[in-house]
Amino acid sequence: MSIETRLAELGVVIPQAAKPVAAYVPAVRTGNLVFISGQLPTINGELQYRGTLGHDIDVAQGTAAARLCAINGLAALRTVVSDLNRVTRIVKITGFVSCTQEFTQQSKVVNGASELLQAIFGERGTHARSSIGMSSLPLGAAVEIEMVVEVE
Amino acid sequence: MSIETRLAELGVVIPQAAKPVAAYVPAVRTGNLVFISGQLPTINGELQYRGTLGHDIDVAQGTAAARLCAINGLAALRTVVSDLNRVTRIVKITGFVSCTQEFTQQSKVVNGASELLQAIFGERGTHARSSIGMSSLPLGAAVEIEMVVEVE
Amino acid sequence: MSIETRLAELGVVIPQAAKPVAAYVPAVRTGNLVFISGQLPTINGELQYRGTLGHDIDVAQGTAAARLCAINGLAALRTVVSDLNRVTRIVKITGFVSCTQEFTQQSKVVNGASELLQAIFGERGTHARSSIGMSSLPLGAAVEIEMVVEVE
Repeated sequence: MSIETRLAELGVVIPQAAKPVAAYVPAVRTGNLVFISGQLPTINGELQYRGTLGHDIDVAQGTAAARLCAINGLAALRTVVSDLNRVTRIVKITGFVSCTQEFTQQSKVVNGASELLQAIFGERGTHARSSIGMSSLPLGAAVEIEMVVEVE
Repeated sequence: MSIETRLAELGVVIPQAAKPVAAYVPAVRTGNLVFISGQLPTINGELQYRGTLGHDIDVAQGTAAARLCAINGLAALRTVVSDLNRVTRIVKITGFVSCTQEFTQQSKVVNGASELLQAIFGERGTHARSSIGMSSLPLGAAVEIEMVVEVE
Repeated sequence: MSIETRLAELGVVIPQAAKPVAAYVPAVRTGNLVFISGQLPTINGELQYRGTLGHDIDVAQGTAAARLCAINGLAALRTVVSDLNRVTRIVKITGFVSCTQEFTQQSKVVNGASELLQAIFGERGTHARSSIGMSSLPLGAAVEIEMVVEVE
């Protein structure tokens, strides 16, 4: 099944890549690897999930934020590989979670990104991962996700 | 000398890879590189070092935690490269240290991982590294280590 | 134009690589990629920018710190690729900013590194990037920058 068909089945729409908020690009390809910039949970450039896990935003909202970051990551990927069928493996994702010192459920939050990638790409979507708790993130975002992807 | 002999000399036993606590895999190979998921200081799935450096866990414990994360990283590596003699270089490690805003000894903590990798792999074990201080880590872990490894 | 000429135009002097403060090396090459260790804002081994963004150091100082980290990253790169004209792409940088939970301008701070790399390398200097807020950094540094670089 093509990735476009799968995206339609899942009801996932990949937007245009967000314009980076600073002096960098959404993604860079080197050989068969694409390094994707840290993605925030934005829609049309507007931050959707702001706050600190364990303080003023809950795990369900954090998980939704991580899912949105992953969608934006695929938008960033498309700036260098227009056809997502050429993805051979999601290699690694890093999930940055803005949270208090007491918060311990970073893994649940980042699952919002991991589960979407597996739903879209199947076996090719299974990836290595780190989930870590941050003091804060750009613009006050609750979550930020970066990715390394292997392509044909 | 084979890596297995060296591990025996050092008294290091590499366990089975910990089952990831979420929707990802322990390690992914792409070309000659293996990206290894962030490892926690667990034994048989039980977290051994919990807490915040500078608050309720000291540098010696943090260093032991980092060493244990590195051992678990080699277990994760074995899920994709069963023979550790095929490691040609530990390329990069990132050491995530859960700590207070006043804590400044992240490098000493992460040495627990770096020194073990050099003891095991010799020249092939010398790596690039970043050590950084986190607000908190999954399950309340004191340290988390991720690795990029080059293999034959 | 050669990179050396461009550095001279910009008044940028790349120092000798700082001796790592622990058991690792400044940079490791694997294939055409160089992974560069997290760099602190030091001159001759002395930390120049200490503190926490949003608390005791301002965005302008943080930006200057990020720029200095990038210069030290090029020094680290030279330990494995002596001629910087062989850089074909700055692939990815990660900017670690020591900051309070209220701080949201990590992107502005890390621009200090990104803008210098683009000034030096032009199109080859445009990179993917993540900017994140840390609880604290080694030695109390305000900023730490790591890089992945593609070389001939």
